[in-house]
Amino acid sequence: MSEAEAPKAAVLVIGDEILSGRTKDSNSGFIADTLTDLGIDLAEVRVVADRMEAIVEAVRALSEKYTYVFTTGGIGPTHDDITADAVAEAFGVALNVDPRARAILEARYENSEFKLNEARLRMARIPDGAELIENRISGAPGFKIGNVHVMAGVPAVMQAMMDVIAASLPASAAIESETVEAGRGEGDVAAPLEKLQADHPSVRIGSYPYHDGTRFTTRIVLRSRDRAALKAARAALDAALESG
Amino acid sequence: MSEAEAPKAAVLVIGDEILSGRTKDSNSGFIADTLTDLGIDLAEVRVVADRMEAIVEAVRALSEKYTYVFTTGGIGPTHDDITADAVAEAFGVALNVDPRARAILEARYENSEFKLNEARLRMARIPDGAELIENRISGAPGFKIGNVHVMAGVPAVMQAMMDVIAASLPASAAIESETVEAGRGEGDVAAPLEKLQADHPSVRIGSYPYHDGTRFTTRIVLRSRDRAALKAARAALDAALESG
Repeated sequence: MSEAEAPKAAVLVIGDEILSGRTKDSNSGFIADTLTDLGIDLAEVRVVADRMEAIVEAVRALSEKYTYVFTTGGIGPTHDDITADAVAEAFGVALNVDPRARAILEARYENSEFKLNEARLRMARIPDGAELIENRISGAPGFKIGNVHVMAGVPAVMQAMMDVIAASLPASAAIESETVEAGRGEGDVAAPLEKLQADHPSVRIGSYPYHDGTRFTTRIVLRSRDRAALKAARAALDAALESG
Repeated sequence: MSEAEAPKAAVLVIGDEILSGRTKDSNSGFIADTLTDLGIDLAEVRVVADRMEAIVEAVRALSEKYTYVFTTGGIGPTHDDITADAVAEAFGVALNVDPRARAILEARYENSEFKLNEARLRMARIPDGAELIENRISGAPGFKIGNVHVMAGVPAVMQAMMDVIAASLPASAAIESETVEAGRGEGDVAAPLEKLQADHPSVRIGSYPYHDGTRFTTRIVLRSRDRAALKAARAALDAALESG
């Protein structure tokens, strides 16, 4: 599979609490790791507020542009949980209490200290035509409509949903990587890396400068779906660093 | 100042290493905290890859839509650092070695173990008409063109640049917040919160469910630029929780 044909994904994180800096987003990192394992290229992450217009616009834009979209946040029982409404609007379908989702919540709350009140029943509202995504942690399901997978924002719940989704995605050629510590500043590896990139077009070469406590150094990461090309680039990089 | 007139900002994080899950983005959280302190609403965060087309498109879209844009990443010396090129293209201006930036780098490397080679001189390329943003940590400056502030990706360097930028931004009415632990599940506070939001339209009310180790509970956050309105909403919330 060439890089151009490879599936591409976007993550849409929904929530004022992330944008205010109050909560740090860990969900997109988890999804990034899962997608990398599956060989799916995560091409974009967006974080937007709990505002109808912002969510509708982002869902439409990302859904048109990428193979898969994964959203987190905004599917709870309160007034600021409007993700299901926005996704239904983005796809132009109705949003009603879904009998399957209602049955799941009824079973969940039957022997619980919590009551299935009107607010919690909001979590059973599913856009017409969507498939449910199982929530092994707290019951209330996510859903999939078109290429958009809608998940909760609470990390443990989101992770359980992502595990279910991952099992359903077609396997792709995994992206493998090689990491090399250059042991010198980024400016001193720039010229050999530029040549390396030109010589090995099917390998993506990234360089990440950092200070290791005593000096500035650089981590070089080679990534490719083609193992032979990756190994060839790694050998060429090692040779360049030894002679440099 | 009303919420509609308040300045809005976007953050654009540039880098394959964030999207691959290899590096977790901490920069947007730091910028979010700084903007909250300044009373600037962070309305959107995007993360895109080190690809020309993706960066140009995001810079144009965010620059048109928001009062301020802050980018991080992709201004180092290597072949995959193409942010300056992309920002110049987005604004339709030339990108050349800037004499001011060159002088900074020459002074920096004069007594250094590192040499100001051709690769490092790439970091002096600044779009025509841009102002420089000081880098107290490692020399190579960021820049501002139009409403777009271009910063490094290394967190310590980005933070130093953001401090410089923050001092130059006009002060806005600060966004104040009140946080209340509800001590009960989100589904049990949903109805009173919906009423509270309707009664206090100038206060944004968010609810964030979590498990505290023994039970599911909810953190409620009230946010407003209007201190009196915030206090009134807080009092109403306390009363609702006591009677509920």
